[in-house]
Amino acid sequence: MIRALHAIIRGAAALAGTLVFFLMLTSVFEAVARRLGRPTVWARWGQAQAINAGDAMFILAHLAPQALLARGVSPADALSTLEDFDHTCLMLTQGQYLDMSFEKREQVSVTEYMAMIEAKTAALIAAATRLGACLARADEKRVESLYGYGRSLGLAFQVQDDLLGIWGDPAVTGKSAASDLEKRKKSLPVVYGLEHSPQFARAYAQPHQPGESVADLAATLEKLGARDYAQQKAHALTTEALAHLEAAAVGGEAGVALRELTDQLLNRHS
Amino acid sequence: MIRALHAIIRGAAALAGTLVFFLMLTSVFEAVARRLGRPTVWARWGQAQAINAGDAMFILAHLAPQALLARGVSPADALSTLEDFDHTCLMLTQGQYLDMSFEKREQVSVTEYMAMIEAKTAALIAAATRLGACLARADEKRVESLYGYGRSLGLAFQVQDDLLGIWGDPAVTGKSAASDLEKRKKSLPVVYGLEHSPQFARAYAQPHQPGESVADLAATLEKLGARDYAQQKAHALTTEALAHLEAAAVGGEAGVALRELTDQLLNRHS
Repeated sequence: MIRALHAIIRGAAALAGTLVFFLMLTSVFEAVARRLGRPTVWARWGQAQAINAGDAMFILAHLAPQALLARGVSPADALSTLEDFDHTCLMLTQGQYLDMSFEKREQVSVTEYMAMIEAKTAALIAAATRLGACLARADEKRVESLYGYGRSLGLAFQVQDDLLGIWGDPAVTGKSAASDLEKRKKSLPVVYGLEHSPQFARAYAQPHQPGESVADLAATLEKLGARDYAQQKAHALTTEALAHLEAAAVGGEAGVALRELTDQLLNRHS
Repeated sequence: MIRALHAIIRGAAALAGTLVFFLMLTSVFEAVARRLGRPTVWARWGQAQAINAGDAMFILAHLAPQALLARGVSPADALSTLEDFDHTCLMLTQGQYLDMSFEKREQVSVTEYMAMIEAKTAALIAAATRLGACLARADEKRVESLYGYGRSLGLAFQVQDDLLGIWGDPAVTGKSAASDLEKRKKSLPVVYGLEHSPQFARAYAQPHQPGESVADLAATLEKLGARDYAQQKAHALTTEALAHLEAAAVGGEAGVALRELTDQLLNRHS
């Protein structure tokens, strides 16, 4: 039973990884044509083929839970897994909608930002860790702890992504430096800057001109303390994630793998 | 029981209609910015929001079969309905891939074309009519007949669509006239023309120039008998669909509705 729980939690973590990769692959309208140093599908095969390939991968993700039957999961449990998965995906589209609509607004609060990344990123990771525990018939407390773990991890992952989008090394991230600032994205450091400096808010409200450097904007954010604020937030969320993992008492190989994953996500450079 | 069968077949037909609409809505890269006389989602809200909205609708289509449980369908049957639906969707992406790749080829045979529309269009309608019959626990012969009905209907629908894409009235279809010829699509009349006239094939291999009229190409196709050929094919497929429907012996209100749908699809102008 415990061995099965671990196996399924590992499976769920792998599922989360796959889906994150899928979402990155299908982000066809990112201004960058490279992800993790490799050309994106749309840059290589065109936008129409990339959308179609993304649809195919999304369908394959739906077919994967059908394999649960062969592992002894009942049809009712497999069906409710799919329902949970689809409700989660629906939240993702809501988060994605908010993210895009924020780009068109001048002011976004930290509270609005956190609600957006909860839907866009954290919901998926939380669903992956929770579903694994549910399928292994873990008790309610453990299911809740693993949900909390995935949620905090997802939030930490997104905040770290925001930091890399401004201060990441382009040679490592595979993106052009500060592309998030060029696109006027409302990432966490920016949202902090908007709340703390009307001067920064005025500068950010001006559309980016082609070729214009955004180094000044990055330097201003750093001076305002936005970088420190986001780093502390990522650290606090990771500590929270580890506390939930501790409470879930996942031992053995699976526990080691989840702790390693948490560590890798916070200390990643791409 | 028969009443339940009819209700479910009506539901399946409605599902097919909804999905066809969804597919049209998400064809974000069509050169036309209008569908059925209305602006497309991407023309109105931008490509990124259109893709996200398409994803949300695709997820809602996956959540719909969850409602079967409330209608007394077992979890095992609901799960296998979802599996069938996803295998069908996977075929759709394969058909869509072929359709796009045909645009880049100089020669496509009628056989290749029929295999493409079988995957891209007919598979979805056939799945809708077959799944309705399966869920109502119709006997095997009836399930097969309703599958055959949906398949023939889907093929006829696509051939009719091809005819409208060249000779449809733009005021009624809401598309620019002959946009399929401008995009060098390999629709059925074109494929027939390519097989019967090397001269037409040479002309079609030249990329379309902006502003250039395609009236000559349409006239050549008509002279080659491509329009008649496609019209006869659409007619034969519709007759085939009606024969399958007859064999399925769907009586009452549902039978009338399916016959009306068949008739409307062949005689539609948009």
